[in-house]
Formats: sequence, structure tokens, C-alpha cells
Amino acid sequence: MSIKIGIITSSDRAAANVYEDISGKEIIRTLTEYLLSPWEPVYRVVPDEQDRLEETLIELCDREGCCLVVTTGGTGPALRDVTPEATEAVCQKMMPGFGELMRQVSLQYVPTAILSRQTAGIRNQSLIVNLPGKPSAIRQCLDAVFPAIPYCIDLIEGPYLEANPAVIKVFRPKK
Amino acid sequence: MSIKIGIITSSDRAAANVYEDISGKEIIRTLTEYLLSPWEPVYRVVPDEQDRLEETLIELCDREGCCLVVTTGGTGPALRDVTPEATEAVCQKMMPGFGELMRQVSLQYVPTAILSRQTAGIRNQSLIVNLPGKPSAIRQCLDAVFPAIPYCIDLIEGPYLEANPAVIKVFRPKK
Amino acid sequence: MSIKIGIITSSDRAAANVYEDISGKEIIRTLTEYLLSPWEPVYRVVPDEQDRLEETLIELCDREGCCLVVTTGGTGPALRDVTPEATEAVCQKMMPGFGELMRQVSLQYVPTAILSRQTAGIRNQSLIVNLPGKPSAIRQCLDAVFPAIPYCIDLIEGPYLEANPAVIKVFRPKK
Repeated sequence: MSIKIGIITSSDRAAANVYEDISGKEIIRTLTEYLLSPWEPVYRVVPDEQDRLEETLIELCDREGCCLVVTTGGTGPALRDVTPEATEAVCQKMMPGFGELMRQVSLQYVPTAILSRQTAGIRNQSLIVNLPGKPSAIRQCLDAVFPAIPYCIDLIEGPYLEANPAVIKVFRPKK
Repeated sequence: MSIKIGIITSSDRAAANVYEDISGKEIIRTLTEYLLSPWEPVYRVVPDEQDRLEETLIELCDREGCCLVVTTGGTGPALRDVTPEATEAVCQKMMPGFGELMRQVSLQYVPTAILSRQTAGIRNQSLIVNLPGKPSAIRQCLDAVFPAIPYCIDLIEGPYLEANPAVIKVFRPKK
Repeated sequence: MSIKIGIITSSDRAAANVYEDISGKEIIRTLTEYLLSPWEPVYRVVPDEQDRLEETLIELCDREGCCLVVTTGGTGPALRDVTPEATEAVCQKMMPGFGELMRQVSLQYVPTAILSRQTAGIRNQSLIVNLPGKPSAIRQCLDAVFPAIPYCIDLIEGPYLEANPAVIKVFRPKK
């Protein structure tokens, strides 16, 4: 049985097929480069609505059994940006270090990085991580936080994720 | 119609006229240097009381229509420091990146920067930003976060703020 | 009367005497090196249970009168890691700058530093600070945040902590 990873794009326009979802596909492409473990994406595109996002997060965590769910979009200050709120609503534990590091990394590129409200948290045995909506920022953020993700999933008793050390250096502390 | 920006000084002593409010005036002076757009300050001095702060924040956002409300004071650990709590109580969305960056910048000057609990958030179409109480720290913090503020106000559908690029480099991503 | 400082180790295994609590002892050793003021540790080892942690935090703050309570352990993403939740439950004010700085410092050593959810807060006249569980990380984190702790305790009207400037440079701003 292969490892399932959820990818959720939160975007009114992508959900209405006004434009193609490049961000979700960029996440799948990046994870495919990173991972040596066999895995399959469980991919959803939803409008920027908090209840729809919460339902989809719960579906991917609880019913699909994804050990990791990555979102893109909906982390800004606009009225319809509600991804962090949906994430917090479904998580038992918040992980503030993810958002802090991603904003710090993005600040090296744009001063508007502080407008991103992206966060991360734990729902049962799933780690949920918000990524920004812009494809270029997605790779920068994943490169920064992914080294800690496999060990996080070990700690919540999920599957063992093996990454390609030529692409990304994952870290697991020695016992 | 000129753009309104709220300035709130939270200080028992300034509210009781025990001393002059230098901090609020420093904010007005700094914004005057930054902005080319015509604007007018809506300026209030209130004691360090959470309900008074909340009322004043709501007044400046909802009735005065300020697109930006900047506070000074009341962000420390002392019993009467309640500005972050008042801010959180009136906002629909919190913006953790502002406080993170301001603390990081202040840490270059004083190790006690970590004692500042300053935050920022969105109430309807207004951005609220807490600044520290010390006049010298106010300019350091505004210089750090202001580059992202006009674009934030664009995203919440507020007025277009134009800044003087010789004084502060504001950033708006290209579409 | 000497100054009381609380040290709480949150660990199922240390509480069950499966192994020795090295972390709590490392905190006592470090504070002994730092402080010139006479002080006494009030030391507890408790299992990773939120209600037990909350009771112990309240006991050390309210009944023992500790001006500072330092915890170790229970800040990760695992099911039984609940120290930040217990801390937040008993505090009136949260101090996000402590966690931010400790994660930033730990990131210089390990990319998994972002998995630490450590925080700090104020309960009445006590400052509570979460430290990581690993003894090596404890010293790194305390070296980073301790310079701000005596002034924080001044601000909440606790006792005057004097530190040894040859070991740690404490900072108090001039009035």
C-alpha cells in the first residue's frame, strides 16, 4: 500500500475552471522529486470557503488516511482567504514554527511575505501544512520546511517517508 | 476625500496628561515622511484598558473608516499591557508575520525585544498594527513592516496608498 | 527569603522512573551558573498529561510563589506532547517572542527545530517558559532568552534577579 499525501488548492477561480491550477501541480511535481518512497497524491481543488476547506481537510486526513496534507492558496489578508482558519479549526495541535520559517524564507524575496498567514498543525496522525499560492514561493517554502516533515510524521506514528538526498536533505535526530 | 489613518496611543500616563504623548506624534511624523498620498490622522490617546482600546479600535475602523490603524504602547508583559488582546478581540484575521518581523528587527537593538507581544490583524477593510511604545523602536518597526502595508490595504480593498520611494520602498507584486 | 524558581519536567518515562531526568537537572545547573541572587529550585517531574501539568504550573506559580517556572519536554507534535497547551491554559498573556527566538536559535543546529511548539506566557506575577526536552538544546535556548527574563520579571513586579555578567549578559533598558 503506497503512502497517501493530500494536496488541496484553495482558489475560487481554479475551482470554477477560470484558470488552471498550476500551484497544486507544482506541489505534486516537487514531492515527486523529493520522495523515494512510493506515494500517491490525493488531489482536490476547492473554492475559498472555510466549511468546504474543513470538509476536504477532514476527508483527506480521516477517510483517505493521508499522513501529510499540503494546501496552497487562501493564506493572505483578503476577505476570502480562510485557509489558516480552516486549518486551525480541524487541528488538535498547531505548529507555529512552520509558518515562521516559511515567512522568514519568503522575506528574502519579497517584503510582502509578512502578509502570508500560513500555518501548520496536527490532526490525529496527519500533518497539515499551508503553502503560499504562488508557484515560485511554493518551492522556496517546501525546500525550507520539508527537511523536518518526515521526522514529524514519524513522531505522529505515520509511515516512514524516504527522500532523495540528492534533492532534499531530510533530518532525523539520532535516538 | 483624503485617506484616514488611525493612531492610538495606549498609555495611562499620557491619557492622564502626566506626560506628553511622544510616541503617537512620532508615528504621525513618520507616516507624513512616508506618504505622498494625501491623508489625515485620526488620533486618540486612551488609558491601558482593554474595553476602551476595543471601543477606540472599532470607532476608528468602522465609523471613521480608517484603512490603517496603528497603535503604540501596551504590548509588554505587565498587568496593564493589553493592546494585543484588544487587537485580537476586534479582528477577524490575525497577521502573525508583522509581530514576528518587528520582534526580529528590534532584537538587533535589545534582547528584551522578545518581551513585546505586538501583533497585527484585519477588521473588515482595516489593517490594525501594534507598534512598541518607545519612540526609537517605532521608526525601526515601521521601516520594517511598512513596505508591505500598501499592498495589504489593496488586498482588503482599501484606498491606494502611494509612498515616497526616496524615503521608503513599498512593494506591490506584479499580477 | 530566597527567590523561588520552578522547574517542571514533563516526561512519562522520567515520571515512571524508567530513566533519570537529566533535562530538569540541566536547567538547575544552568540557572545556578547564571544567577548571583540567592534562589531555590522548586522541582517537579510529571507525566505528559495536560491536567497534571496545569495543576503543577498553578501550584508553582500560585502556592509556591515562583517568579519564573521553566518546563522541559512535551513540546513536540506527538499525541502526548501537551506542554504548550497546558501553558496556554493557565496563562493570562502569551509571549510569542520566546518561542520564535528559541526555534530560530535551534534552527542553527537542526532543521527539526520547527517541530518544537514551545511558548511562554504570564500567569499573574509568574513567567512560564517552555524549553525543549533535549539537554543540549536547553542550554542553547536559555542562553538566547535568559537575557530578557530578569527585566520581564521586573515588569510583572517580581523579585530583582541578578545574574553573573561573566556567564550571561542580562539586559535592563534605562528608564
